[in-house]
Formats: sequence, structure tokens, C-alpha cells
Amino acid sequence: MKVAKFGGSSVASADQLRKVAQIVKEDTERKFIVVSAPGKRDKADTKVTDLLIAIGEAHRKGEDVSKQVEKVLARFRSIVSDLELDNILIEQIADHLEGILADTIPVLDKMDALKATGEDSLAKVFSAYLNKLGVKAAYVNPQEAGLLVREELGGARILDESFDHLYKLREREEVQVIPGFFGYTKEGKLATFPRGGSDITGSIVSAGVKASLYENFTDVDSVYSVNPNIVDNPKEIHTLTYREMRELSYAGFSVFHDEALIPAFQAKIPVCVKNTNNPSAPGTMIVAEREVTGNPVIGIASDAGFLSIYISKYLMNRELGFGRKLLQILEEENISFEHAPSGIDDMSVIIRESQLPADKEAIVVRRLKEELQADHVSIDRDLSMIMIVGEGMIESIGVSSTATKAFTDANVNIEMINQGSSEVSLMFGVKTTQLHDAVKSLYQAFFQ
Amino acid sequence: MKVAKFGGSSVASADQLRKVAQIVKEDTERKFIVVSAPGKRDKADTKVTDLLIAIGEAHRKGEDVSKQVEKVLARFRSIVSDLELDNILIEQIADHLEGILADTIPVLDKMDALKATGEDSLAKVFSAYLNKLGVKAAYVNPQEAGLLVREELGGARILDESFDHLYKLREREEVQVIPGFFGYTKEGKLATFPRGGSDITGSIVSAGVKASLYENFTDVDSVYSVNPNIVDNPKEIHTLTYREMRELSYAGFSVFHDEALIPAFQAKIPVCVKNTNNPSAPGTMIVAEREVTGNPVIGIASDAGFLSIYISKYLMNRELGFGRKLLQILEEENISFEHAPSGIDDMSVIIRESQLPADKEAIVVRRLKEELQADHVSIDRDLSMIMIVGEGMIESIGVSSTATKAFTDANVNIEMINQGSSEVSLMFGVKTTQLHDAVKSLYQAFFQ
Repeated sequence: MKVAKFGGSSVASADQLRKVAQIVKEDTERKFIVVSAPGKRDKADTKVTDLLIAIGEAHRKGEDVSKQVEKVLARFRSIVSDLELDNILIEQIADHLEGILADTIPVLDKMDALKATGEDSLAKVFSAYLNKLGVKAAYVNPQEAGLLVREELGGARILDESFDHLYKLREREEVQVIPGFFGYTKEGKLATFPRGGSDITGSIVSAGVKASLYENFTDVDSVYSVNPNIVDNPKEIHTLTYREMRELSYAGFSVFHDEALIPAFQAKIPVCVKNTNNPSAPGTMIVAEREVTGNPVIGIASDAGFLSIYISKYLMNRELGFGRKLLQILEEENISFEHAPSGIDDMSVIIRESQLPADKEAIVVRRLKEELQADHVSIDRDLSMIMIVGEGMIESIGVSSTATKAFTDANVNIEMINQGSSEVSLMFGVKTTQLHDAVKSLYQAFFQ
Repeated sequence: MKVAKFGGSSVASADQLRKVAQIVKEDTERKFIVVSAPGKRDKADTKVTDLLIAIGEAHRKGEDVSKQVEKVLARFRSIVSDLELDNILIEQIADHLEGILADTIPVLDKMDALKATGEDSLAKVFSAYLNKLGVKAAYVNPQEAGLLVREELGGARILDESFDHLYKLREREEVQVIPGFFGYTKEGKLATFPRGGSDITGSIVSAGVKASLYENFTDVDSVYSVNPNIVDNPKEIHTLTYREMRELSYAGFSVFHDEALIPAFQAKIPVCVKNTNNPSAPGTMIVAEREVTGNPVIGIASDAGFLSIYISKYLMNRELGFGRKLLQILEEENISFEHAPSGIDDMSVIIRESQLPADKEAIVVRRLKEELQADHVSIDRDLSMIMIVGEGMIESIGVSSTATKAFTDANVNIEMINQGSSEVSLMFGVKTTQLHDAVKSLYQAFFQ
């Protein structure tokens, strides 16, 4: 039994849903279908989820929301009419939105409930469409499926017992169409996942039903060895391991969000990335282990938006607890750090820029200076991280040499090197202005 | 006015003291002479300080110490008789040791008081010798000079007011002979410096008297660009900056101890390393700033005796406070860390092996596993650190590339790279078995 998840662009329009239905019909193993909310049909379009957020924001301000609601309904109306489905589906969606807004449907967080309406409605529409095509299908609400979450600061987290509940879905005969992006707390509160929405749901369902394969349908033929916006026609990756994927997505590989695949990884379910618009392409397999032959590097990821906090203090290395105190101050300011390279009398902490908005900067700098009695504290913004990833790297002498030469060739100064903990990655920090030059040169060094 | 400090080998015998006296006579600017305790005269010899420690240990066990005391006296007796000085000096040393052991001289820490007797006695002997040669000289006790320290865990630390006290020594006419290695607390308690003994005293005196130069006489012609035990006839360094010296000595450059030069650095006193046995050689100047021309690298330091603690945990990077908790556990176990490279779901902490004796290892591993709920904790011993140092590095593109290529050429796997905080150094971790190969290859890459 396979789980197939279809992303926002795959379900953006009736035409796309026809392709999806064809894919579902082609393989009877595809028993569990997880869907996103309709995404953009072209670059100028707006995602349904963003339209729903706009409703929520207008409603919060006490404004009239009828125009925003109509925009959402129009998107679904065009799908339903184009697929020649019963118009009652639109009425149900309208009733549902109205119920949330008018408090006749009890919800615990109105914005969460509104946002989740995109996936939920699309699942209902798509299961109706499958039935119309003669494929026995059923919409499955995550609460009914037992997809339970614990709500935490920053988003929901799956509860272990969910997997046992989901396993029971195997007994059902119909194709199960499950909306992505949300689950329910034990108290029946709808809660959305923090990032990677439908990818996480697909991953959780795959683990729960012990799928033979988790197919993640998106709009690219495969995972590429480098960001195609930086390097033209980059090499496709045919097979990569879970931990390679995790390292790559941490540093900006946009195919998956950082933690979306973890439930599938932990259950050792193989994952396949495929293209809804070109389903016959082999795609990229993501597996627990792979054979390493040839190139020890499988991909080069990169991400902008980091900054470095630099702290120096004479005799720092004689002071037991200095590093701990530094991290404690950041923790008290709710800042999580990425890396902390250290010298003898100095230490830097690399964090994502979003963690330190300008108004917080002065507070943090003052606390570090005063509480650590630091000689010097400074902030260096506009940093980018580049991550070179590959299972073969730990045993291959010379990867760092090839990499650093590529920086030299591109005349790029390396601000930071972090190697020593992960066995499959090597990380470099550079100025964001030099990011593209560096990535291009690295790609050339490892793949051309 | 210059401060000249003579190390253990420079004052090991009467012959050596003749050279020292000649050096003092040659330059009337040499007004402040700081001396160590007599060191080894040859490889099989024992340092006087070690003989004194043996007295202290035997005494602590309640054993008869007369033989050990005689060994110390014999060393001084041979110097005094060879230099044809008054034998009363030996009686004074004997009385002093007896006084400490019999509690007739009140001391607060007997071992500290015994250890400091080496420097103290040599200062008395050498000032007598200078006077005999017609150079007006006086022994200056650190207490009389106002060299005050705060006693801390692990050793004494200079009190700021000492510098003003020392400045008054400028008014004295005689050459001032000051024993290195110890100072006094405000309560009159003798306290020894933790490491770098006489180097620290010389450095403090230089800062206090605002010396035009701090000459550090030892038994090498200069500071070398790499450990001469690893590379034959390495390049001499003519001038290097304080921070280059500090980074180099951190990682095993044995000319100075880690923190010995800091008081001189802070007062911006230039330092010169010279050879007692070849005083006409120019030596190595250590200064606040230098011009960088040509090679961006000035030296390659290396040190064995490190280990790495590896901790992995799924979703670590989502857990605010993980790094802080990890460092807190180490702090509670009184372990100070050197570096902490981090991956996404893992983190390593590099510490000196002396910080984690085998009996502590099990406790630390258990605490990390339990309190951090880590998936995996392991310890990797026999690591060495290599540090490439140079003021020119920050602006020079390609240093890391040259360095990593040198590792590749030597077929050495890099276990860790730490770059990103210090502007003047780049640090690598390797297996100790591969240390020499790596250092040789780096030396060849940067200096040949």
C-alpha cells in the first residue's frame, strides 16, 4: 500500500486534479491520498491558504470579510464546475467558513481553523471527483483517522498513539483522501503543523499505515544536486538517504521542509519525489541507506538569512561556564542558535536573522556585554550558509580541500567553516553577496 | 628601562649564571631581572622545583625529608661555591626550608611556600653574584615589591593595584633581582602562579615598571614557525603580534605558557625572546601590531591530548536550550570545553583529555544520555589540534584551501575544522596518530 501526497501546485486547478486522478487510478496500491490546499495556478495567482489567512486577519480587525470569502469560494467553484461535480460541495464550504466566522462551529483557534479549510475542502472535492470517475473513495477527517497532536509553542507535534490509529485505516476498502496540514489535540482542538504542512501529514500517514512507499508528488521531476535558481540544469539526484535529505533541506533545499519527512524516516518508509506533470519520470528515491560510488558529494544546499554574534573577552578560555552563560542569555531571549564556533578569547554564535529582529538586537548586545563582562560584542548580518552533503564524505579525504579551493577560485572569502559533528555534511558561512558565486564554483568543482 | 627574565635552563648552573651576569652587564637598561629556579643541566637532571615538590610530598606523608633537602642544598651549594660566593647563602636557604617544614616560619600553604623557594633562593644568590662583580644589585621580595595576587581556584591572579606598586621600583638605583613564580595575597599569603611561572612575573613587572622592552631569555634563538620536534630546522619568526603568540601558545607552542604574556600585552610592552647561550642572535620580537607582507601564515601550532564528546538527538535543532543544557552538565562536572561544532541533529564538544579522566567518563556519558534524553553519546579520544595562525589570514583568500590540500596530500582525514571566530587562526582536529604527517605537510605547503 502506497501513500501519495499531492502538493499545492498539483491540486491548483481542475486540470491538475485530472492529472492527479489519473495517477491515482493507474496504481491500485495508491490507497492513501494526502492533499494540500490549491496553490498558485501561475506566478501572479494567490494560494488558497493565503486567501484564508486574509479572511482571518480582516475578521480579527472587525472588517467585512464577504469579498475575501467570495475569493475562496470562487477558486473552489471553478474546480467543482469544471469537474462537473455537485454544487452542494461549494455550499458546504461556504457554510463551514460562515460557521467558523459566526462562532456557530466551535473552534479553539479561529485562524488555525480557517487556514485548514483549504486542505479540508479540497479533500472533500477530490474524493467526490474520484467517486464520479468510478474510483471508490472516501474523505477522511484527521480527527476520525485518529491523527492526534500535542500543541506546542510554534506548532503541533504528532502523538505516538496516532500511528496505531492510522494503521487501522488499512482495513478500509475505499481510497482514503486525507487533508494535509492539520491534526487534532486529544481535547478535539484543531491544530496546524508549523512548517511543511501536507508533507508532514503524508509522512505521518505513511508511517502509520506502514506504507511500502510514500510518494510525494510535486512540480519538479526530481531533487536536484543544487538550487536550480543558482545553477542552470543541475544534475538530478536519483537516490539519497534520509539524513542527506535532512541536511540538505535544513539549508534551503525547498523540496521538503526541514522536519516533514522525519516520521517516515523513523519508520524506514522509502520516499519517492515525483512530478504530477510528468509522472513517468523516475523521480528521486529517499531511503535509509544507499551504496556510495564515485562522487562522495550528493548535493550542495544554501540558505541566506543568517547573522553572527561575535563576543570577545580576554581570558575567556579560563572562565568555566562562559559558553554556557552566553547560550543561557540567548535562551532567555528565546533565541535558538545554529552554530557556535569558538576561538581562544572569542566566540561567535550563528543564528537565523529572523531570531533577532532589530528591536531585540540592542537588548541582547547589552545583556551580553554586561552579564558576560565582554570586552567586545558585535553583530554581523547578511550571512549565508552553504552545506555540502554526502554519505561518502566522512571516508573521503579531500572533500574539504576541493571545497575550499572552489571558494578560492570564485574569490570568495570563507567567513566560517563548521565541520566535526555531522558525518555527512560540511558547512561554510559566506557573505550573502557572494553566495551565488560560491555555490556556482562549488557545483563546478564537485559535479562538472 | 628593560625587564629581562631568565628561564630555568639559563640559571641551571654557575656557568649559565656567568652568561646571565654578562648579559646584564652589557646593557645598563637591564634594570629588572626576573629569575626562575635552576632547571635541568642536562636531560638526566632534575629541576630544583621538582626536588622541592618531592620534599613537600615526603613531608606530607610524615617521612624523613633530610635526603631530599640535601639534594636541593647541593644544587645551590655547587652554584655558590663555583661562583665563589659567601657560604652563608646556603645556610640561609637551609634555615628557610627548615623553618617552613618545622612551622617556625608561618606559611599558609606549605607546598606553595616550598615550591617558591627555588626562585627565591636563586634571586638571592644571583644578586649576591652581581654585587661581587661590581654591579650594584638588590634582591627584591615580591611582597616588598607589592606584587599582590588574588587567589583563585587553580592559581593566583594579579591584582590591578600591583602595577602601581611595581612602578615605584623605577626609583631604585640598583639592578633589581626578583624571583619569578609567586606573589602574595593582601593577607600576606604566598601564592604561586598556575602556569608559566616566571614568564608571568616578568610580564607583570614589565607592565608595572612600564618597561621599554621585556626580554625573555631562554635556550632557543627564536620562536619557530612550527614545532622543531616535528619539522627539522624550521623557519625562525622575526616578528609576531601578541594575538598570534597567544593563539600559537594555546596549541602547544612551548616558548611561552598560554597566559604568561597577557599583562605585558595589555600594557603594550614589546617582548623579545632571546637565547642566553647566544645573546647576539636577534631573537623574536612580539609586538602589538606588525606589517603583513607575503605569507599570510606565520606559524603552525599543534597539540595532542584532546577528545571529542559526540551527542546526537533527533530534532535537536528544534529544542531551544539544548546546547546550553549540554554545556551546563559539563560545567557542573567542572569540565571546561574548547570547541563545540554542531550539526543539525548532533553536536560535538572538544575538550582536553585531562578534563575527563576515565573514572569521570561514565558519569558524564550517563548524565548526557539521561538528562538530555540523547539518542546517542560517544567519546572519541586521541585527538590532536592543529592551529594555523597569521594576522594576514582574514584578508587572504585561499588559506583554508592551501591548508586542506595539505591534509589531502598527506592522506590525513580532517576530523574537525573550526573557523569563524578568531580573525587570526584556523583550527583543525586530526587523529593523534596522523598529527606529525599533517603538520609536516602543512609546513611544506605554507613555508616551503
